[in-house]
Amino acid sequence: MQQYDEVRAAQWVADRLRLLDQRKLPTSIEYLDLHRCEDVVAAIADMVVRGAPAIGIVAAYGAALAGRTRYAEAPSRWKQNIQPDLDMLAAARPTAVNLRWALDRMRALVDTLGADPFEPLLAEAKRIHDEDISANYRMGELGAALLNDTSVLTHCNTGSLATGGYGTALGVIRSGFRAGRLRRIFADETRPWLQGSRLTAWELVQDRIPVTLICEAAASSLLKAGEIGWVIVGADRIAANGDVANKIGTYGLAINARYHGVKLMVVAATSTIDMDTAAGSDIVIEDRGVGEILSSPVLLEKGATAWNPVFDVTPAALVDVLVTERGVVYKPDRIKLLALMEGQHKR
Amino acid sequence: MQQYDEVRAAQWVADRLRLLDQRKLPTSIEYLDLHRCEDVVAAIADMVVRGAPAIGIVAAYGAALAGRTRYAEAPSRWKQNIQPDLDMLAAARPTAVNLRWALDRMRALVDTLGADPFEPLLAEAKRIHDEDISANYRMGELGAALLNDTSVLTHCNTGSLATGGYGTALGVIRSGFRAGRLRRIFADETRPWLQGSRLTAWELVQDRIPVTLICEAAASSLLKAGEIGWVIVGADRIAANGDVANKIGTYGLAINARYHGVKLMVVAATSTIDMDTAAGSDIVIEDRGVGEILSSPVLLEKGATAWNPVFDVTPAALVDVLVTERGVVYKPDRIKLLALMEGQHKR
Repeated sequence: MQQYDEVRAAQWVADRLRLLDQRKLPTSIEYLDLHRCEDVVAAIADMVVRGAPAIGIVAAYGAALAGRTRYAEAPSRWKQNIQPDLDMLAAARPTAVNLRWALDRMRALVDTLGADPFEPLLAEAKRIHDEDISANYRMGELGAALLNDTSVLTHCNTGSLATGGYGTALGVIRSGFRAGRLRRIFADETRPWLQGSRLTAWELVQDRIPVTLICEAAASSLLKAGEIGWVIVGADRIAANGDVANKIGTYGLAINARYHGVKLMVVAATSTIDMDTAAGSDIVIEDRGVGEILSSPVLLEKGATAWNPVFDVTPAALVDVLVTERGVVYKPDRIKLLALMEGQHKR
Repeated sequence: MQQYDEVRAAQWVADRLRLLDQRKLPTSIEYLDLHRCEDVVAAIADMVVRGAPAIGIVAAYGAALAGRTRYAEAPSRWKQNIQPDLDMLAAARPTAVNLRWALDRMRALVDTLGADPFEPLLAEAKRIHDEDISANYRMGELGAALLNDTSVLTHCNTGSLATGGYGTALGVIRSGFRAGRLRRIFADETRPWLQGSRLTAWELVQDRIPVTLICEAAASSLLKAGEIGWVIVGADRIAANGDVANKIGTYGLAINARYHGVKLMVVAATSTIDMDTAAGSDIVIEDRGVGEILSSPVLLEKGATAWNPVFDVTPAALVDVLVTERGVVYKPDRIKLLALMEGQHKR
C-alpha cells in the first residue's frame, strides 16, 4: 500500500515515542520525542496528536512509558503507582472512546504482570498500533468496494494522522483512489482547527492524491450540484444504538446529505463502538473554549463570546452505511451493532 | 436609535467618500478617503466595503465622483465619458443586485442632467443612502415584532457595515434587542472571510449588544438544542420567485433550520429584489479563488486546490418570512413578490 501511505502520526523509535506535531502542519514539519507518560498526556490534551484511533494508540504507548518510569522508581510498587498515570491518560480528552478502550487493554495487561513490565506493555501498545493499521486496510477495501466512479466529500482528518496509519474514512478514500473508483475528492476545511485544510490536504499531498478544499458552508452547494455520491466520515465514538459522535459539523453535513439524496458512510474500527453508551445523548461533548473562534481578545473584553463544541452527534437514522474491520453494516441500529460486536455479523 | 446604532461603513465627508476599511477590522480601525471613481471600483472589488446594500450606496457615490471628474476634464463630453465609469462600477462584483439597482438610478439621473452634474448626482447618492437607512429602521420594527423572547442565529454580516447603516437582519436583531424581545444572539463566524467573527462581533460590541460566535459547523447542534427560535439572514439578490442568493452557508443553514423546525427570516429592502431574474438558478455566483481557503501555497503547488463560491441560493420554499421595508411577506413566491413590487402588498 506504500504508494499512497507514507505518513505516520506516531512511531516508536528506539526507546521513545515520536509524534509528528500536528499543530504545526502544514507550514512546518516537526517531531516531538516523548520519554514520559506526563508528556504524552500533555501531547494529547494540547492536540500535538488528535483523532480518536491515534489518541488511543498514543495513550497505550504512554502507559508503557509510565510502566517503565514507575518500575524504575519503585519496583515493588509500580502497579499501584501507575494507576494515577492511567487515569490521567484517560482524562486527557473526553469524547473519543478509543482512549478508554486502549487503556482498558493496557490495564488488563498490567493486572497480569509481575516484574519489569515495560517490554510486555510496549509489545501490547505496538499490537494495538498494528491492529489499527490492519483494521484500516481492511476497512479501506470494504468501503472502496461501495464507491463507483463518483466524487466524495469528507470532513475533518481521518487519515494517517488521525489513526495508526492509512486512516478510516480517508483510508476508504485512499483505497478508492488507488482502485480508480473515485472522480474527485473534496474535503471540508473543518473549522475551527482546520484539520481538513491543514492535515487532510497535507497528508494527501504527501501521497500525491489530488484534493479540493471547501469551507463547510459550501458543502450544501456542492451536494446540490450532484457530483457527490458519498459523504464519508470517521467517528470518535459510536453509541450502542448507532448514533455517531464525530467532529463538529458532521451532524449538519448528514442532514444536508440526506436532504440531497447523498449517502453517508461512517468508517470506524470496532474499537470506536461503545456498547456501554446507550445513545448519542449520553456522550460527553468536549468544549474547547473561545480562543479558537474569537478573532481578537478585545472583542471578548467588550462582551462578545463564543461557543465551541468540537464534536456533535449524528443520529443513527442519518447513517446509511457503517464500515468496520469486521464488515459493513447497512442502516446501523442497536441489534445490528450487538451482532457485530458479538461476532454474529454476517459479512 | 443612536444607543444601538453607532457604526457607519461609508460617509460623505466634505468633498470625498470615506470608507471604514473592513479588511482590517477588528484589529485595526482605518479609514480610506476616496476622491475618484476608480478608487471606489477598487474598494468594492477588494472588499474594503462589502454587503449588498452598502455596495450599492458606495457605487452611487462613485458615480457622483465620476461625474465630477469627467465634467472637469471635458464639460461638453462628460455624459459620454462617464459611461465606462458606470460600467466599471457595475462590474466590480457580480452577485449583489443592489449595485445594478443603484447605478440604474444614477444612470437615469445622468440622462436628465446638462451642465455641472456633480451636485445633483451627489444629492441622489445621499438620497439612496438615506433611503436605505430608513428602510432598515422600518424593517427592524417589522422583523422585531415577530420575535418573542427567543434566541436567534444570524449568518455573515448584515449590519451597519453591510448597509447604509443599522442593517437588515442585524437591524431586526438590534431592534429586537432594544425592545427586550431577544434572549441570546448567536452569529456564525462565516468562513472564509469571517464577516461574523470580525465584523458582526465588532459592530455589536461597538453598540454594547452581547453576541456569541459559533463556527458554521456548530449551527446544527445549536438548532437541535432548542434555544433558537429564528434564523435571521440578509440577501444579496432575491429572484422573482423568491429564491434568495446570500452568503455561502445560508442554504445549508436553511436546510438545517427546516429540519429542526426553526423558522427562517430573510430581511432585505426591495432594492434587493430583482424581478428581472426569474429564479435563483439564473444568479451568477461569485467565486473568489483558492487564496482564502488554502492554508499554505505549498499545498497548491503540490496538487491541492480549493473551491470558493462566496454565495449560494436558498430556494423560496425554505424561507418562512421575508421582511422588506414595504411589509412582511409570509412564504414568499412569485405572485406575492409581484404584488409587493407593484405596491399591491397588503401590509
